[in-house]
Amino acid sequence: MTRIPLFLAGTALFAAAPARTQTAPGTQPTLFRAAEMAATAKQATAYPLFAAEQTRVRKEVDKAIRAGIVVPVPRDPGGGYTHEQHKRNYTAIYGAGLLFRITGEKRYADYARAMLLDYARLYPTLANHPAASDQRPGRLFWQSLNDSVWAVYAVQGYDAIRETLSETDRATIDSGVFHPMARFLSTGQADEFDQIHNHATWACAAVGMIGYTLREPDLVNVALKGLKGDGKFGFLAQIDQLFSPDGYYVEGPYYQRYAMLPFVLFARFIEANEPNRQIFKHRDGVLLKAIRTSIQTTYDGYFFPLNDAMPDKSLRTDELYQAVAIGYEVTRDPALLSIAGWQGRTTLTPDGLAVARDLAGGKAKPFPFASQFLSDGPDGDRGGLAIMRSGPGDKDQVLVAKNAAMGMGHGHFDKLSWILYDNGHAIVTDYGAARFLNVESKDGGRYLKENESWAKQTVAHNTLVVNETSNFGGKWKAGNKLAPRQLFWSSDASATVSTAEMIGAYPGVRYRRTLVQLPVEGSESPLVVDLLDVTGDKPATYDLPLHYSGQITAIGFPLQSNATERPVLGKAAGYQHIWVDATGTPNADNATVTWINDNRFYTWRMLPPEGSSVILGESGANDPRFNLRREPMLIQRVTGVANTRFVGVLEPHGNYDAGEEKTIASNSRIRRLAHVRTADADLITIDLADGGRVTLAIASSADANAAHSATLDGRKLEWNGHFARFDTPKGR
Amino acid sequence: MTRIPLFLAGTALFAAAPARTQTAPGTQPTLFRAAEMAATAKQATAYPLFAAEQTRVRKEVDKAIRAGIVVPVPRDPGGGYTHEQHKRNYTAIYGAGLLFRITGEKRYADYARAMLLDYARLYPTLANHPAASDQRPGRLFWQSLNDSVWAVYAVQGYDAIRETLSETDRATIDSGVFHPMARFLSTGQADEFDQIHNHATWACAAVGMIGYTLREPDLVNVALKGLKGDGKFGFLAQIDQLFSPDGYYVEGPYYQRYAMLPFVLFARFIEANEPNRQIFKHRDGVLLKAIRTSIQTTYDGYFFPLNDAMPDKSLRTDELYQAVAIGYEVTRDPALLSIAGWQGRTTLTPDGLAVARDLAGGKAKPFPFASQFLSDGPDGDRGGLAIMRSGPGDKDQVLVAKNAAMGMGHGHFDKLSWILYDNGHAIVTDYGAARFLNVESKDGGRYLKENESWAKQTVAHNTLVVNETSNFGGKWKAGNKLAPRQLFWSSDASATVSTAEMIGAYPGVRYRRTLVQLPVEGSESPLVVDLLDVTGDKPATYDLPLHYSGQITAIGFPLQSNATERPVLGKAAGYQHIWVDATGTPNADNATVTWINDNRFYTWRMLPPEGSSVILGESGANDPRFNLRREPMLIQRVTGVANTRFVGVLEPHGNYDAGEEKTIASNSRIRRLAHVRTADADLITIDLADGGRVTLAIASSADANAAHSATLDGRKLEWNGHFARFDTPKGR
Repeated sequence: MTRIPLFLAGTALFAAAPARTQTAPGTQPTLFRAAEMAATAKQATAYPLFAAEQTRVRKEVDKAIRAGIVVPVPRDPGGGYTHEQHKRNYTAIYGAGLLFRITGEKRYADYARAMLLDYARLYPTLANHPAASDQRPGRLFWQSLNDSVWAVYAVQGYDAIRETLSETDRATIDSGVFHPMARFLSTGQADEFDQIHNHATWACAAVGMIGYTLREPDLVNVALKGLKGDGKFGFLAQIDQLFSPDGYYVEGPYYQRYAMLPFVLFARFIEANEPNRQIFKHRDGVLLKAIRTSIQTTYDGYFFPLNDAMPDKSLRTDELYQAVAIGYEVTRDPALLSIAGWQGRTTLTPDGLAVARDLAGGKAKPFPFASQFLSDGPDGDRGGLAIMRSGPGDKDQVLVAKNAAMGMGHGHFDKLSWILYDNGHAIVTDYGAARFLNVESKDGGRYLKENESWAKQTVAHNTLVVNETSNFGGKWKAGNKLAPRQLFWSSDASATVSTAEMIGAYPGVRYRRTLVQLPVEGSESPLVVDLLDVTGDKPATYDLPLHYSGQITAIGFPLQSNATERPVLGKAAGYQHIWVDATGTPNADNATVTWINDNRFYTWRMLPPEGSSVILGESGANDPRFNLRREPMLIQRVTGVANTRFVGVLEPHGNYDAGEEKTIASNSRIRRLAHVRTADADLITIDLADGGRVTLAIASSADANAAHSATLDGRKLEWNGHFARFDTPKGR
Repeated sequence: MTRIPLFLAGTALFAAAPARTQTAPGTQPTLFRAAEMAATAKQATAYPLFAAEQTRVRKEVDKAIRAGIVVPVPRDPGGGYTHEQHKRNYTAIYGAGLLFRITGEKRYADYARAMLLDYARLYPTLANHPAASDQRPGRLFWQSLNDSVWAVYAVQGYDAIRETLSETDRATIDSGVFHPMARFLSTGQADEFDQIHNHATWACAAVGMIGYTLREPDLVNVALKGLKGDGKFGFLAQIDQLFSPDGYYVEGPYYQRYAMLPFVLFARFIEANEPNRQIFKHRDGVLLKAIRTSIQTTYDGYFFPLNDAMPDKSLRTDELYQAVAIGYEVTRDPALLSIAGWQGRTTLTPDGLAVARDLAGGKAKPFPFASQFLSDGPDGDRGGLAIMRSGPGDKDQVLVAKNAAMGMGHGHFDKLSWILYDNGHAIVTDYGAARFLNVESKDGGRYLKENESWAKQTVAHNTLVVNETSNFGGKWKAGNKLAPRQLFWSSDASATVSTAEMIGAYPGVRYRRTLVQLPVEGSESPLVVDLLDVTGDKPATYDLPLHYSGQITAIGFPLQSNATERPVLGKAAGYQHIWVDATGTPNADNATVTWINDNRFYTWRMLPPEGSSVILGESGANDPRFNLRREPMLIQRVTGVANTRFVGVLEPHGNYDAGEEKTIASNSRIRRLAHVRTADADLITIDLADGGRVTLAIASSADANAAHSATLDGRKLEWNGHFARFDTPKGR
């Protein structure tokens, strides 16, 4: 692949480095080279994305310069004044450094210098932040995580101007800010640093990038291999243990987005300073896989809101601007250019320049969004995420089976849950996190207590709840020890199928779930077929919630409504937050609920197990501070049995056109849903209103070669493997 | 104004018509002339909007042709099969006629002919529709209104092909469909036809357009002057009585949109056939004013959802495509072209061709959205709609004071209510109508009973409720007799102000409300200041609801929450639909509620009257069929006093940026709100956090010249007229 000289960036800092133009330590920025500045400056304005970013950053930094140097003594929690000011400052230092490199305008270097000299005065005087909570205390911020982020950005700005400083200034800033900060973030918080966790990744990146910038190999070594230098912790161990072989991050998509940043920034620094480490080839290029995986775990550009996640996070975030730019610099994958196009932004670095140049050059190719199973766990054997896509488009249907492992402290108790997007909207939902990011009046923007009492609880998800308790008794450390098993995954034109099993989420209970994305002729979008098989060692109450988005337009069965006084469903494990609107006891012929979302209807059709009932509810009980969104749900409940089986079909149908005042197919097109259990399989039959029939055969065995047969309505069905589909066209 | 020959359309049918090329009755389409077809055909593809419409209609009609002629015996209610099929049919007849005229392809004429011959067989056999409700029964549809709509469209298609038919076919269709339909819609439902109401307008348009097409002057005469021909009813009387001098339609924006269609279509037919009537100059061109007014009563293209209104109705509806095309044909106003651009569609008529041509020709000018007062009532003295716009943009703030009259049976009991849009969203809301248009499972798409029990009730709006009852005892006929008085309206750079008074909405109670849109330096968007002054003849309970959209982020005062069991607020007049989440008794220093909507915060700051409390609630109680959206509200309540005064300020502030994870000004920037009553005025003072102060002086007298003075905090204030603003910059 051809590269312009600009991308031969990097300092040969250590002996190990290959022979190339050497520069004296301390006089060479990591990502920019003096020789290349002219080229950069010339091209900077030629490519819209880069030119726009330059304008944006210039506006931001110029505004900061006008505002003067404001380095307040830390006081406020997230969202508060000093919190935001210190964030503005690292952004300004970072931006000023980049602008200086690109424009050569000394005023930017001067500003970054002056700001850092102020920090050199302030930082040594700081103890733990006054607003520090139970979480790790920082110095500039309420949690040290933010201090690490500050360092990662500020040191890049510093790296860009350091060579221009006098020995004295350089010494003042090295010893006043970055060296002590690196010490605080490493040895100063040893058990935070020597951890396999994204907070530690930030700390490692901060310490390592400071190490390269200050030319302190010992800091780099600690960052890469941990405080003991034995590789048990540190950056490399984190790459090895936090990602699956498919590049799926242990904490899920939201934190993958967040965690990507220190991984790619530090890796880019390593690549620039010690290319011989071949960091992007490390572990079969898992960091590059992780960049692509993070993009795959989005719908219409927004991350699947699994575990502790804000649902409004999209690819339009700095983490992904950096990941895409750095990923492109390393791979030149044109699919990343189309993502940059969607983002409408890139970074003010040589990498971003390459993205802007090639995007302007028309080299972009569509990103290959597709159905895929992403394994979880360092060895890929701790379940995973089954992503089913009806197509690559923003409005195509996406079903996500959350068969991944616990994912540490930000993980939710949602084993074998699922979510569905269709027609551009979330239809079967995950609450995500109960939090108002950086909104001071909401506990300073931290996770709210309702995040524990509702958002994390099993009943807040679309999966089995036993006896009104959550998975693993609501203890994530217990959950971390266990994981679902993905028994089967396949995807072709006839169906996309995932079968997974969970044992140990509840004592004495094992459950297995098959989810099928089933294209059916004449349907706006595929049907979703759900088979949940529960085996317990004693009678229990089994609940299966479905959290849906939309307004109910039809209910097939009679309801007993709590129309004038609304009770709460339960006392704990999230049940205390559920208002009960109504209950009913549907049968196989009338167990349907239809709702409308935007211009499309959705019918959830159930086969109620023996003695089951349905609860219609809404979140928001026991929420005196209005911390929760009020969202509807329905819960299928079976009581007093040890084993049960939930069968359901979600059917997107019809169209509501407000402008044209035309509504079609507002009623379900399914006439009948049936299920029979044979010796070694489950047969699910869907009879369509037009007379057609689809039968799904799901064998108990996941063996791809095992032969199976069954007789249904006098017809012999034969198939090999775990799953088969039999279609009977209308009029047969 | 220069016109291309195409627009010299029209048949000189009556003696009164001016001399021009005569054509024999029955051989001349109203809007198209054979001579012009060639020109049309040539230009048809040259202009994107027209070409796209031609493609769209061709696709629709070709599909209908492939489906064959399907004219089912009427059976289903709105949304049902036969309902939708007869709608598809009139659309197809209309489209086929236009396509035949434009393309000259005979197959389109043949299709329309065959379809109409089937209707000629079916129609004479029909009695009242089996699904007819208490409303006026139709023949093809459950209500005769839809029959009128069918006729208005079908007759345009028929008009376009009639000259091509054999005498026999023409006679069959004339006497089998249109003549009896015209009779049914006029004499066949005399008290529906001789009415001043939009249903009657549709009937008149149908009968009149049939009259012109069938060359039956008596039908035209009945359509224009009513069954008795005395002008007491009929189209002209409707123009005179249903619109105000400002072109505001009595039923409000939603029905204005709907009502526009028969007005403009029939008027266009009149203009084409009897230009000497100068119908578009009638009553100072009120029909043209009405077209512009209907556009003014939108936000971001969506109609203000006042009275019985679906909130999802926008300018992208056939009514407005027609109104804009016909309005442009008559006026050549380039502002209408920018609306057509926003609509992205026009009509497949010579008028639409002119729109498409001039839009493509770059002649469009921005539509002049602006603050304005639209008077209500035939004489403009029955209150009106006060529209306050902070700018012409889609995301600028719009405050609408609903000071209009009752507006007949679809009117809501919302005297002196208001709504607010800001930052592209509805912030202070009006529920609109409780209805799922054309959704069969929701009472066949008709208005739901919750429309009466909730949507229309006073408490469902943002205005005064006395003793938990609605305006006029909830009787619209009583309401029709009374109207608010607009006492004052002004708009300049310092403030836009509306003061109105309502007497008689409640026995013995008069109330006056001043709403001010107040630009304040440093605020994202103007503040809204609300002063509601209530005078009663005996102690009562006064409620002032505020229906807001967003999630609460902060409440300034302590709450007593119904966290575990949610009671209902009341028994009737809408109160039975309100869940009570919490109550509190704020004071002047802490009476604030802050919510977030999208990326902006809103703080509602009150000056609680003596002995008042605040109720936080949500709609959805007593709603066993889930017919209502669940939406939050707060209610200020004062009990046991005869007179009271509510003062409030709504403040948009701050910014929440999820992508950048930056939040600014999530707390209110107002330090203090104060009110004093002087001998002849109310003084409202707003102290800003930055030290600035704004004082509003609102005189009791609406006299623009009266001199007033007052002393506030030792400072003398002097002004002339009803309203004045005094600013004290920070640091004074």
